[in-house]
Amino acid sequence: MASYVFGIDVGGTTVKMGLFQNDGTVVDKWEIPTRTENGGEKVLPDIADAILGKMAEKHIDRKDVAGVGVGVPGPVDGQGIVHRAVNLGWGVFNMEETLSGLLDGMVVKGGNDANVAALGEMWKGGGQGYSNLVAVTLGTGVGGGIIIDGKILTGATGAGGEIGHIHIQDGETDQCGCGNYGCLEEYASATGVVRLAGRTLAASDMDSVLRAGEVSAKTVFDAVKAGDALAISVAEQFGEYLGKGLAAIAGVVNPEIFVIGGGVSKAGEVLFQYIQPAYQKYVFHGSKDAKFALATLGNDAGIFGAAKLVLE
Amino acid sequence: MASYVFGIDVGGTTVKMGLFQNDGTVVDKWEIPTRTENGGEKVLPDIADAILGKMAEKHIDRKDVAGVGVGVPGPVDGQGIVHRAVNLGWGVFNMEETLSGLLDGMVVKGGNDANVAALGEMWKGGGQGYSNLVAVTLGTGVGGGIIIDGKILTGATGAGGEIGHIHIQDGETDQCGCGNYGCLEEYASATGVVRLAGRTLAASDMDSVLRAGEVSAKTVFDAVKAGDALAISVAEQFGEYLGKGLAAIAGVVNPEIFVIGGGVSKAGEVLFQYIQPAYQKYVFHGSKDAKFALATLGNDAGIFGAAKLVLE
Repeated sequence: MASYVFGIDVGGTTVKMGLFQNDGTVVDKWEIPTRTENGGEKVLPDIADAILGKMAEKHIDRKDVAGVGVGVPGPVDGQGIVHRAVNLGWGVFNMEETLSGLLDGMVVKGGNDANVAALGEMWKGGGQGYSNLVAVTLGTGVGGGIIIDGKILTGATGAGGEIGHIHIQDGETDQCGCGNYGCLEEYASATGVVRLAGRTLAASDMDSVLRAGEVSAKTVFDAVKAGDALAISVAEQFGEYLGKGLAAIAGVVNPEIFVIGGGVSKAGEVLFQYIQPAYQKYVFHGSKDAKFALATLGNDAGIFGAAKLVLE
Repeated sequence: MASYVFGIDVGGTTVKMGLFQNDGTVVDKWEIPTRTENGGEKVLPDIADAILGKMAEKHIDRKDVAGVGVGVPGPVDGQGIVHRAVNLGWGVFNMEETLSGLLDGMVVKGGNDANVAALGEMWKGGGQGYSNLVAVTLGTGVGGGIIIDGKILTGATGAGGEIGHIHIQDGETDQCGCGNYGCLEEYASATGVVRLAGRTLAASDMDSVLRAGEVSAKTVFDAVKAGDALAISVAEQFGEYLGKGLAAIAGVVNPEIFVIGGGVSKAGEVLFQYIQPAYQKYVFHGSKDAKFALATLGNDAGIFGAAKLVLE
């Protein structure tokens, strides 16, 4: 009876590694550097070495390991084929087969990192107890991961849950990084909040603590908590866009819960009081009771979710 | 080896019934009236009688029937519980258990009718060969059904795929039947097309064949095919709204294909030339290559999909 599982989260600079018991108990957690030179050819061998080394160190036998889950910063299809991971230098190849080959045939399961993190939040984080959830990551961009009946929604080309680029506003003149105009990411990411703040400051003479020093998502929500009227107006705009976007997502997948993570979510539950009014205004009645929760695993969501990939 | 399956599509006035071989070959197809009096208490007994009668007529043994699939005009959860079907007078009860009890324990599977029709189009219709698809029904309203990895996306409360009420336009002053403003259904349904035509006629002095007689989705698209400039403008508006809506849906589930059915789809492939420009303008690049096809099963999609419910 295999009682251990490895969860690996491959990032552009470090690879986060976790050794878990099958019930999700963390046995060990560590990082190795990501060597991206030569098309990232060292990344998987380095991971394999680290796994085998850890098994030797902990006296864990091969037959006691259920497998290795891997979150990749790029699309991974249902056959384990990565379709380019630009930050790693990877092209198109079967990651599961390759890593399994380096591990003497051990079971390897791969997934996109945002989707895998969503699975982690379902298993041991803010979405625990639910099997239909939408994880929303409000970081530099807006990422997402969708879980349906306990399984990741991968999509036809691995772009399932790429919710940051849903068109949410007509008439936008600033271009999104994706090339379109009016994407959710332009308003609900950390950079989106800063942009909304800049516009609001420029359009108003109102006094605000945001006029002193550099504006970030953190300074905006700190000012909201301090009662700053201009910052509150920025939060209302943020909430209007994000609530509208989440209502559209609910109209498609009707989730039990939204789990909100990423840097912006550090503001805490105050976010929900700005998201909920717009969500309730725009959503179809069948999804009115969807719950909202904060992500709780932070940077560890990826290793938990990767481990769960093997166990599901 | 069970080689037959029943597919049942329960509507407000008639129940469509199909007897299939397991490979989808139609053995027989007929209808019975829906008796909705007394909370629709006769509906399931009538269906059970019709099934048992057909088995006797065709000399089909109980052990040769894989089961009975049922599409219901209301939400049905993963346990087979119907959560009200207003058109039938039904409240909340376990439809699968009840019908199975009337059929001496035969396997019964239920699903929402729009979702079941989507499954039918995947199995034997416009979505054949695909396992990740979004079926869009442009009728009096806009309905939808989403299939992920060959299975219906039901959602937390059975509202998965209720895409007609995604908010698509700010500032709309006409209220949607759902109570909100600016839903996809207000622009892309048959009644939505008529509304857009009415607005366009009122706002313009342009000559048009639509100024004579009653306007319907059919007269609009017939006029489009005849080169009527005002009708073309209506089709462009329709396509802009629907393309924008489908792009948002693609940003969530990243389907292989959209299968477009319902009355409006009788206009044929001309629809795609109005939907595609907006879809391409708004969609995230990972979903740019999603295919578009017309539904082919018409009113039989429900019985095919219901049969497939049992076989999946």
